[in-house]
Amino acid sequence: MVQRLSHLFLRTLREDPVDAEVASHKLLVRAGYIRRAAPGVYTWLPLGLKVLGKIEQIVREEMNAIGAQEVHFPALLPREPYEATNRWDEYGDNLFRLQDRKGADMLLAPTHEEMFTLLVKDLYSSYKDLPVYLYQIQTKYRDEARPRAGLLRGREFIMKDSYSFNLDDEGLEEAYQAHRAAYIRIFERLGLEIAIVQAQSGAMGGSRSEEFLHPTPIGEDTFVRSEGGYAANVEAVTTVRPQPLDFSATAAARVLETPESETIETLVAQSNALHPREGQPWTAADTLKNVILAVILPDGSRQLVAVGLPGDREVDLGRVEVNIGALLGVGGEVEVEAAGAEDLKNFPQLIKGYIGPGLSLDAPLLGTESATGIPYYLDPRVAEGSAWITGANEAGKHVFSLVYGRDFKADGLIEASQVREGDPAPDGSGPLLAARGIEMGHIFALGRKYAEALGLKVLDQNGKLQTVTMGSYGIGVTRALAAIAEGNHDDRGLIWPRNLAPADVHLVVTGKGTEIFEGAEELVAQLEAAGLEVLFDDRPKVSPGVKFGDAELLGVPTIVVVGRGFADGLIELKDRRSGQAREVALDSALEEILAEVRG
Amino acid sequence: MVQRLSHLFLRTLREDPVDAEVASHKLLVRAGYIRRAAPGVYTWLPLGLKVLGKIEQIVREEMNAIGAQEVHFPALLPREPYEATNRWDEYGDNLFRLQDRKGADMLLAPTHEEMFTLLVKDLYSSYKDLPVYLYQIQTKYRDEARPRAGLLRGREFIMKDSYSFNLDDEGLEEAYQAHRAAYIRIFERLGLEIAIVQAQSGAMGGSRSEEFLHPTPIGEDTFVRSEGGYAANVEAVTTVRPQPLDFSATAAARVLETPESETIETLVAQSNALHPREGQPWTAADTLKNVILAVILPDGSRQLVAVGLPGDREVDLGRVEVNIGALLGVGGEVEVEAAGAEDLKNFPQLIKGYIGPGLSLDAPLLGTESATGIPYYLDPRVAEGSAWITGANEAGKHVFSLVYGRDFKADGLIEASQVREGDPAPDGSGPLLAARGIEMGHIFALGRKYAEALGLKVLDQNGKLQTVTMGSYGIGVTRALAAIAEGNHDDRGLIWPRNLAPADVHLVVTGKGTEIFEGAEELVAQLEAAGLEVLFDDRPKVSPGVKFGDAELLGVPTIVVVGRGFADGLIELKDRRSGQAREVALDSALEEILAEVRG
Repeated sequence: MVQRLSHLFLRTLREDPVDAEVASHKLLVRAGYIRRAAPGVYTWLPLGLKVLGKIEQIVREEMNAIGAQEVHFPALLPREPYEATNRWDEYGDNLFRLQDRKGADMLLAPTHEEMFTLLVKDLYSSYKDLPVYLYQIQTKYRDEARPRAGLLRGREFIMKDSYSFNLDDEGLEEAYQAHRAAYIRIFERLGLEIAIVQAQSGAMGGSRSEEFLHPTPIGEDTFVRSEGGYAANVEAVTTVRPQPLDFSATAAARVLETPESETIETLVAQSNALHPREGQPWTAADTLKNVILAVILPDGSRQLVAVGLPGDREVDLGRVEVNIGALLGVGGEVEVEAAGAEDLKNFPQLIKGYIGPGLSLDAPLLGTESATGIPYYLDPRVAEGSAWITGANEAGKHVFSLVYGRDFKADGLIEASQVREGDPAPDGSGPLLAARGIEMGHIFALGRKYAEALGLKVLDQNGKLQTVTMGSYGIGVTRALAAIAEGNHDDRGLIWPRNLAPADVHLVVTGKGTEIFEGAEELVAQLEAAGLEVLFDDRPKVSPGVKFGDAELLGVPTIVVVGRGFADGLIELKDRRSGQAREVALDSALEEILAEVRG
Repeated sequence: MVQRLSHLFLRTLREDPVDAEVASHKLLVRAGYIRRAAPGVYTWLPLGLKVLGKIEQIVREEMNAIGAQEVHFPALLPREPYEATNRWDEYGDNLFRLQDRKGADMLLAPTHEEMFTLLVKDLYSSYKDLPVYLYQIQTKYRDEARPRAGLLRGREFIMKDSYSFNLDDEGLEEAYQAHRAAYIRIFERLGLEIAIVQAQSGAMGGSRSEEFLHPTPIGEDTFVRSEGGYAANVEAVTTVRPQPLDFSATAAARVLETPESETIETLVAQSNALHPREGQPWTAADTLKNVILAVILPDGSRQLVAVGLPGDREVDLGRVEVNIGALLGVGGEVEVEAAGAEDLKNFPQLIKGYIGPGLSLDAPLLGTESATGIPYYLDPRVAEGSAWITGANEAGKHVFSLVYGRDFKADGLIEASQVREGDPAPDGSGPLLAARGIEMGHIFALGRKYAEALGLKVLDQNGKLQTVTMGSYGIGVTRALAAIAEGNHDDRGLIWPRNLAPADVHLVVTGKGTEIFEGAEELVAQLEAAGLEVLFDDRPKVSPGVKFGDAELLGVPTIVVVGRGFADGLIELKDRRSGQAREVALDSALEEILAEVRG
C-alpha cells in the first residue's frame, strides 16, 4: 500500500499546540496523527487511525488467543442496570448523564460490568455454559475533572474491556491468570515496559486487583517497588504493623505546658526545651498528629473523620480516599480534603494545633462514641501500647505519655501515611523505591458483587442455583498509543516501533527533472509489490529540508531518500531511531530495504 | 478459522422477541446476532459482529478506491459548531443533548458536517490542497421518536459518512458522481437492489440530493418510479404544472346554498342536486379543498398555514413538511399536523367545512395580507385562471366559479397533494408507479452552506479567498445488515450471501461414538487449513434436530453434516438457500466443499 503525501490528508505543524504539556501530545498533534475536537476529545487523522488499528489488532489477537470472544455494546445505555449496582450515583460527576426525548435517564458508559452481567444472565443458565470470557474494543466516556496530556487522560477514549464468568473461585483465578498472561504478552508486543502492581479496587469493588503501570516520569500514578520483586500502587501499599508494646512500666499520662506549639516542628522544639527526655531528645516520631478530614461522599455531602498518625509522617489523601469508603460503609468513589473552618465551626472543643483523642478512655474527644462523635482512625504504625505526645485539646498544652489502648482508642485502622522510599516492603522483600507510571491496564477479580446485584445465577452440577463469580479486565487502547509515542521520540519527532508504524518505509524524493521522480516511482512500485506499506513523499515544489523534517517528525522507522546520489545510481537508507544513514546502490535497493524492514 | 458451538457465546431462541415486527429483527435476535440493550439500542454478539465487519470492509474498500481517506471523529461534541450552522436548534428533539460537569453543552452527533468542515479549515488553506474526500465509519446517535424494526431505525447506529471539499462546482459534481458510482458498487457487493431516487435535502440543506432506496414492502419510505426511468421519493416528486386557462368567458363568482356539505363528498352531491351543471355532473375535481395546518417549528411553536388543493386529492403531510420550511423562511426539520380547535379559536371567520380564500381579491380571508393573516399556499395543480367550487366562509354556503387569479390569490405554491399511481412523471417518462423502500444511503451536493457558516475558505489560483463547496454522503451500515437479513431469509432462518456470512461452512456432527467426532474434527482441520471459516457444531449431547434447526436459523450458506452416512464413508452437503442436499464421499469432501464455497 502506498500513501502519497501529495494526496494524504496531513498538515504537519512547526509549533507545539498551546495546550500540550507532554511530548506525545505535542508530537501526535504536530505530526498530524490526532486533532483536538473538544477538551479531552480527539479526532483521529489517517496516520493516527492506522497506528491505532495496529494496536487494536494486537489486543484482539491476544484476547482471542485466550478464548475470549468479541462482542460490542452500545455506549449509550439506560440508567437502570447502573442503578441496581449503585454506580449511577457512585460515579458522581465522572459520569456523562443525559435524558432522551421521553425523559428517560441514560448515560455514556465508562465501563460495562452491568451490561455484560445482564447479557450473560440473558443467554446462559447452566454451569455447562461456563466459563465464558467476553470482550469488546469500544469507545468509553468519562467526564474527567481535568482532562490532560492529550490522549493520556481523555473524556472519550477507546478501551478493550473484558469480563470473565465462572462458577467457582478456582475458575475465577484461572480466568484472572489467563488475562494477566495475555496482558503481559500484549504489552510486550506493544514494546511497553510494564510494572504489575497491587492495587485497590476502588469503586469497581472486588477482592483483588492489579494495575499494569508503564513507568514514566510523566505518569500520574505513584507506585513503589522493592528489589525483591514487590510492586504496588502507593494507594495499595500496606504497612508492616509493629508488635504490641508492653506499657506496664510506662508513666501515667500528664498534661504539660507547650506554648506556641501548633506545628510538629514547634512542638518538638518546645518539648525538648521545656520537658527534655533523659538519654535522647524528643523527635517528631514521638508525637501523634491528629488531622480532621472532610470526606466528600458521592451524593455531595461531607462527612468528617479524624486520622491519627506519627508526627514524622504526612497524610496521603489519596491513600485515605481509597480506604475510607469501606470503613464508613460508603460505596463509590469519595474525595477527601482537609476540613475547613466551616466544617469545624460546631466543634469548639477542637483547638487547632492542639487536637488529641482525649486524656483518658473515660473522656474521649475523638471517635464515634466520643463527645464530638467524629470517627477516629489510626495509622497502623501506631502500635498497641505505644506512648505519645499529643494534643490536650487546650491551647498551649499537650499530653505526654498518652498510651494507645490504655488512655485512648480508635474506631479502626487506616492506611493514612505517605509511603516513603526506604519503608520496608510488606512482604519482607526489602526497602521500597518510588517511581511514577501511567496506568495502562487494570485487572480485577470482582467476585460476586455484580452477579449478586443483578441476579446472575446458573444451575450447578447438582441442579442448585449458584451466583456466578466475575472478573473484569481493561486496557486503555488510545492511552497505549500515547504512551508508546511518549517512550519513542526524540527532539525531531516520533520514532515508531516497526510493528506499529503507520508505514514500513517513508520514501522521500528530492531534486529536479522527471527522471528522478520516475526512478522513485519505480522503487515505490517495487516496494509495494513486495508487500510493504510505503509513505511516499512525492510532493513537487517542496524543499528537501521540509521533506526531511516531515519524515523525522512522522517517525516511520526506515527513511529512504531518492535524491542527490540518484544520478550515480545511489539512494540513501536511513534508520530513524539511530540516525545512521548509508548509501546503497539503486540496483540492490529493494533487497537492502527489505532486509532493513524485515530485520 | 474455526468457531466451535460448544464454546461460542450463542443461545438461539425458539420464540420471536415480543417487540419485533419485521423478519430481520426477529431472526437476528433469535439467531443470536444482536440483542436489545435499550429501545433502539443494540448489542452485537460474536456472529453479528463478524457480518458487520465484512460489510464495513466492503464500504471501506470502495471508499478508498475513489481516493477517500479514513479518519475518525468523536461522537461526543461541543455545541458551538452546531450552533454556528443552526443545527443545534434545527434538529429539535432528534438530537441527544447533554452537559458536562462544567455545564458546557455537548451533543451526540447524528452527522458530522460541521466537524469535517472545521477540520479542513484547520489544516488546509490553498486550492492546491483540494479536492479532498474524507470519511469515517462511526457510531451515530439520533433520538428517534419511534425507534422500530430493530436495526432498521435505531437510536445508536453505525454510519459511513463522507464529505467532499472542492474549489468549484465542477469539482463538486465530480465528487458527487464518484460517490454515486462507489455507492452503486457497494450495494452491488452487498447484494442489495437499489433504486436511486431524487430526494429533498431537508435539514441538511444543499442544492441536490439523491437517496439510495432498497425496495421492500416493509420500507418506511414511499417512492415512485416510471417505466421511462424516473424515480423519486414521494416528498421530492414535482407536479407537472397545468397551462394557464383563459377565463374571459368564465361566469362571475356566485355564492349558493349548499346545506350540510361539510365534506367534499356531500358538497359534490349537494352541488349536483341543487345546482346541476349542464352537460356533465360536478365531481370532486371541480372543488377546491382548503385545509388549515399547524406547522410545529424546531423551537416548539406552532404556525398556522392554509393549503388549497383540488378536492379529489388528499393532503400529504410528509410532502408539506419537507416543503413548508423554505416557504416560511424557517430552517430545520418541522412537523405538520391538522390544525385543532385550540389553534383555530381566534379565527371565528373560518367555518369548518366552508373555508375558502374569500369571495374577491378585495376581501381575502386567507393569505398573509388577508383578514386572518394565515399564509395561503396552493397545490401546483390549481391552474392560473381555473374556476372552482369552494367554501364561502358561511355555514351551508359555497361559492361557485371562483377563479384563481381573478377572484383569489395565494402566497405561493406548495407540493401538498398525495402523489398517486398513474400521475405523470415530471420528466415526461410515463405514468408513476408506487413502491416502498428503506433508505440505505443518501448523497447531497451541499454546496457552500456549511463552508460559509463556518468560514472555510482557501486561496485560489489568483490568490483570492474562495469559499469551498462541499458534498456529504452517508450509508447506514447497521441498517444495511438488517436490510440484507430482511431480503435473505425463509421461515426457518437467515440465508446469508456468501461474501457476508459469518462463516463459509457450518459443519454439524451428529451421532455417537468417538470415531464420528474424530472424523468431523479431521475434516474441520482440513477446511481450516484450506483457509475456510468454519462454524463447527461440536456440541455433545445435543440432538440432531436441534443442531439442524440451529444451522438453518444461523444461515451459513453451506451446511455439511457428518452423521448417518459416515460409517459408509459419506457426508452430506447442503445448500442453505436452495435446500438441496447431496451425499459426497468423505475422500472427496474437501474438494467438493471448496468447489461449493468458492463457486
